[in-house]
Amino acid sequence: MLELPRLLITLGDVAGIGPEVLLKLWVQPALFTKSRPVVVGDVAWLRRSAGRLGYQGAIVEVKSLTTWPVSSPEILPCVQGTKAELIEVSLGKPQAAAGQAAFDFLKLAIEKTLVQEADGIVTLPLHKEGLHLAGLKYPGHTEILADACGVTKFAMMLYAPLSQIKTGQRGGVGVAHVTLHQSLRSVFADITTKTVLDKIDLTHDVMQKLLDRQPRIGVCALNPHAGDGGLFGDEEATCIKPAVEAAAQSGKNVSGPWPSDTLFRRAQDGEFDGIVAMYHDQGHIALKLMSGFHLVNITLGLPIVRTSVAHGTAYDIVDKRCADPYSLLAAVEVACKLIEQRNQVR
Amino acid sequence: MLELPRLLITLGDVAGIGPEVLLKLWVQPALFTKSRPVVVGDVAWLRRSAGRLGYQGAIVEVKSLTTWPVSSPEILPCVQGTKAELIEVSLGKPQAAAGQAAFDFLKLAIEKTLVQEADGIVTLPLHKEGLHLAGLKYPGHTEILADACGVTKFAMMLYAPLSQIKTGQRGGVGVAHVTLHQSLRSVFADITTKTVLDKIDLTHDVMQKLLDRQPRIGVCALNPHAGDGGLFGDEEATCIKPAVEAAAQSGKNVSGPWPSDTLFRRAQDGEFDGIVAMYHDQGHIALKLMSGFHLVNITLGLPIVRTSVAHGTAYDIVDKRCADPYSLLAAVEVACKLIEQRNQVR
Repeated sequence: MLELPRLLITLGDVAGIGPEVLLKLWVQPALFTKSRPVVVGDVAWLRRSAGRLGYQGAIVEVKSLTTWPVSSPEILPCVQGTKAELIEVSLGKPQAAAGQAAFDFLKLAIEKTLVQEADGIVTLPLHKEGLHLAGLKYPGHTEILADACGVTKFAMMLYAPLSQIKTGQRGGVGVAHVTLHQSLRSVFADITTKTVLDKIDLTHDVMQKLLDRQPRIGVCALNPHAGDGGLFGDEEATCIKPAVEAAAQSGKNVSGPWPSDTLFRRAQDGEFDGIVAMYHDQGHIALKLMSGFHLVNITLGLPIVRTSVAHGTAYDIVDKRCADPYSLLAAVEVACKLIEQRNQVR
Repeated sequence: MLELPRLLITLGDVAGIGPEVLLKLWVQPALFTKSRPVVVGDVAWLRRSAGRLGYQGAIVEVKSLTTWPVSSPEILPCVQGTKAELIEVSLGKPQAAAGQAAFDFLKLAIEKTLVQEADGIVTLPLHKEGLHLAGLKYPGHTEILADACGVTKFAMMLYAPLSQIKTGQRGGVGVAHVTLHQSLRSVFADITTKTVLDKIDLTHDVMQKLLDRQPRIGVCALNPHAGDGGLFGDEEATCIKPAVEAAAQSGKNVSGPWPSDTLFRRAQDGEFDGIVAMYHDQGHIALKLMSGFHLVNITLGLPIVRTSVAHGTAYDIVDKRCADPYSLLAAVEVACKLIEQRNQVR
């Protein structure tokens, strides 16, 4: 019998909704039919959260992963992932200790996964300001992961699973971003034939794994009306089209650059599986309208599998018990799918 | 009894789907319960189209509008709006004669409406390449209208009527654009406190007329995460926020700048009536996903009422009889609503 994937779930920023989302999902059997999850977090904090939120199971501290721990709705194994002192942390705002702890959880999970003590990582949200207060200058998970894994060809993908697409779509839709956490003014320098081609390759690879078939990739234009034949900008002709042609020549089903306002509509209607967006809001506006906040964040280009919830720490609703664990479950399912695909190839 | 609005419908580019859309709508009684429409177009071309598409009514050439002509599903009054020779025009591609004619139709309609021989204009699509082939250097209707009316404070709004919004929305949603038909690289110079404030004012005014109440306006950020406190760009602090504050001080219900990916989602869920977008694709990606192609284009800031279908000439489906007249009917309804509001104020 094939064993289920060994997943590490990092607790993220403990002042946010991560612990609530985790404990809400932990009592659902669906989590355990797909994976063997273990938390990387803070044992004392989790026990406090369990008390407050009414989780009845046992939170068991795990010292080693060489023998993978048992987990179930009644048993929540947790690796102590930080030495930061969290006792003074209060809910609902960024703090240095919580930022440091979120970083520590992630680093330990990466380390364990790189040495194959775990099969993949699913992350709960951290808060950039918390990181900054702890002296850690990263805009978010993606850049920490790329740094720790030593990769430069990587991308952030937002993925909407099948069930979340409203009309006509025959599979999920994923959007990868050529540029991400930077000012709109600064994107032009980073949109080149090479960066666009890299993102097409990454999008093709992950969507092929998720769909088990050749994916149909559409590439966004940068300018309105795709530049209207050069009248409103020339990046379509100078950077994007050459990348699309190179990717098509290597046998991929890829087309563009398409005017982005019609491309996303066509994707919603089922014509494309993967989209390459040129900048953050181009992709994010579209996927959040197509699928609400039930999205999965996938880091492409890493040597390890990593997915994440697509929401943030949501400090404004912490402790209100209204946080929705759907995105975490979807992130677990996508990670498991990617791990299974990788294991089949091996 | 209040008389129905006297509407001029311009035929647009005759090589596109305009004539088909017009004739399909003309047989629907709904058109005549709202308005008294008259076409500005080419009589001979319309008669040819009617023959091809099976329109059975009479196409009557109208010499003067001083006595407003009778119209009905059986009678289609048409002002001869061009001297361009259209007999050689073929369907489905941009041509100089069709471009010149589309321009002539629009200019005549503007002229007649400015002298109050008509109450407003609804336009069918023209094609920019056709205009260019005729030596007319305009990117589209909006700029021709602004020029002919001598206004500099104007904006293009995409409006999704009530029935087209999928969830929760208690009225239509309109999105006005601070910048429009220009390269993304060039928008930064045109996003200033003044231009943003102008667009907030225009959005407020038109949405108040369309909804008969104080509208709730949300203003988009330019950068991802609304610049994340200055980390990814400063236009939010230097240009957009001052404009929002000035508008709020004048009593408008306006807020922002909001991260655009969450703002449009909130608008779809019913929290905003009007959105001010910073650039073309920001607004267009969102509204096309929220409402498909059933949108109305409204020119804000003109001394006359003008609405338009939101689709283009669709050369690829000309003569296939699959063009949808819904957007034209919606454009007529919105024009009529704006005319009634104006007449009440008078």
